[in-house]
Amino acid sequence: MENKVLIFGHKNPDTDSITSSLVMENLERKLGNENVKAVRLGDVNKETQYVLNYLGIEAPELISEVEPNQEVILVDHNDKTQSIDNIGDAKVLKVIDHHAINFTVSSPLYYRAEPVGCTATVLYKLYKENEVEVDKTAATLMLSAIASDTLVLKSPTTTDYDKKVVKELEKITGLDINEYGVDMLKAGTDISDFTPEQVINIDSKLFEQSNKKFRIAQVNTADLDSIFKNQAYFEQAINDDIQKENLDFYVFAATDIINSNSRIISLGNDAPVVEKAFGVAVDNHTAMLENVVSRKKQMLPPILDALNNDVNL
Amino acid sequence: MENKVLIFGHKNPDTDSITSSLVMENLERKLGNENVKAVRLGDVNKETQYVLNYLGIEAPELISEVEPNQEVILVDHNDKTQSIDNIGDAKVLKVIDHHAINFTVSSPLYYRAEPVGCTATVLYKLYKENEVEVDKTAATLMLSAIASDTLVLKSPTTTDYDKKVVKELEKITGLDINEYGVDMLKAGTDISDFTPEQVINIDSKLFEQSNKKFRIAQVNTADLDSIFKNQAYFEQAINDDIQKENLDFYVFAATDIINSNSRIISLGNDAPVVEKAFGVAVDNHTAMLENVVSRKKQMLPPILDALNNDVNL
Repeated sequence: MENKVLIFGHKNPDTDSITSSLVMENLERKLGNENVKAVRLGDVNKETQYVLNYLGIEAPELISEVEPNQEVILVDHNDKTQSIDNIGDAKVLKVIDHHAINFTVSSPLYYRAEPVGCTATVLYKLYKENEVEVDKTAATLMLSAIASDTLVLKSPTTTDYDKKVVKELEKITGLDINEYGVDMLKAGTDISDFTPEQVINIDSKLFEQSNKKFRIAQVNTADLDSIFKNQAYFEQAINDDIQKENLDFYVFAATDIINSNSRIISLGNDAPVVEKAFGVAVDNHTAMLENVVSRKKQMLPPILDALNNDVNL
Repeated sequence: MENKVLIFGHKNPDTDSITSSLVMENLERKLGNENVKAVRLGDVNKETQYVLNYLGIEAPELISEVEPNQEVILVDHNDKTQSIDNIGDAKVLKVIDHHAINFTVSSPLYYRAEPVGCTATVLYKLYKENEVEVDKTAATLMLSAIASDTLVLKSPTTTDYDKKVVKELEKITGLDINEYGVDMLKAGTDISDFTPEQVINIDSKLFEQSNKKFRIAQVNTADLDSIFKNQAYFEQAINDDIQKENLDFYVFAATDIINSNSRIISLGNDAPVVEKAFGVAVDNHTAMLENVVSRKKQMLPPILDALNNDVNL
């Protein structure tokens, strides 16, 4: 493995992170770069497992660190806090992403980010630009990633380009995103056998920006009540994390994929930033954010703006 | 102007920064985005003026700041220290670049960087990907930028892709890069009517990395002696700048475009980093760097490595 270029997405991998590393591996090989290997930085969640089961393929190998000077390709992330712990030891050859940018390297590299709903959308563009045929497995992986990241094209992160790509992927796969995608999302919302601690870690991202250290965790659900009836247990798990990691604040968002809104729990010394960020009153550590479903586009930017504009925090 | 998306390259613009802003304006318009305008952040140097005279076109308008929330597209740079002073007030829509990355934004954007010799090479790829025809003026501008950044394809930053693009641009323009490009470079080396202060500012970049603030300035020449016979005057100009800007060190590189090497002057409290970075002995503040012509690939990375590995600096 050591001599191969490793391809991986972010920690606490979601469907886009896992599938995009597999798709990028496929693309690189078709372009003649045999020496690549998709890996992952964390457990496969239930939604992603649904995709892998559907295709009958194995998850990429789990890794926890890289050798010094290991050549890597990052997909679906660029921020070091979301990457492998010793990313500083690696040599980043390429980045394929669709997020905000918080990235520093001392040598030029291939960096491709576009403000679209999903890394897979950018990857599909790369297949087209390089005139590489998209096979059915790669197309299913990309369709899954887009269905996941855009909540079946309903999230405000969805662009016309995502929709166009989905149409073409539906043709290749014979799948209907509104059937296959919704089944996949539902599989991901099954948290019946999870502890609150496990739930908050399904899709949790650490940010160190504006001199603050914070997490925004998100879980999709078709039933907000099933989560909030156990709010006290979730608060305990979140407070444990705040203490363990010395966080300034923590936002946990339960996103209702049926009604397209999110109910949050916010804790920590700087939790008041949430009221300013979203213009809501937080009552008993929780608030409903109407029409908010995207961490990337609707949660992180207002939080960063609120942090940057408030010298008292 | 205020309502237009402004397109600009870095401060102390070189030929790539000026021509790539004009070419990006052309590409955006051909893609239906009429509302764009190329501008520049500094004086046009003699090399670039040669290109504009050859084509009979005007330089982009000079600007020194942007309005709050002004939408901008950055070409040929990403580092805020090299951009317009109040770049923090602007909304960056796109970045097209070929440099190392030191960039943070809170919202996703279009970011396209490739490890090639010139921004124009990336732009040519964008024309092809979008199936937009390259007209003769745009082709001449891109050929000029590549000839400039790669020293007529002789710099180690030159990639096979730059060479391939040059072949296609030669076909469109009817120009031979070894004739036109060399004439252009020579026009740029005429510093006979410049003061040392003006010479060090022809192509000077400010870096704030690894907790140090420093400049690397570069000037092309066909005659190193003409510069070093006046070394004392150059040292005075450099030391003035160090004091004025509170720099930790300053590297001025006179690059011999005939013999493909650079003679440097290094000054400032942290100037010893240069010996470590390049493995050379600095004598009387100067050293010859054999086969070193690229700031981006051969000067900045070893300096950053030396800074990062030396806790005493």
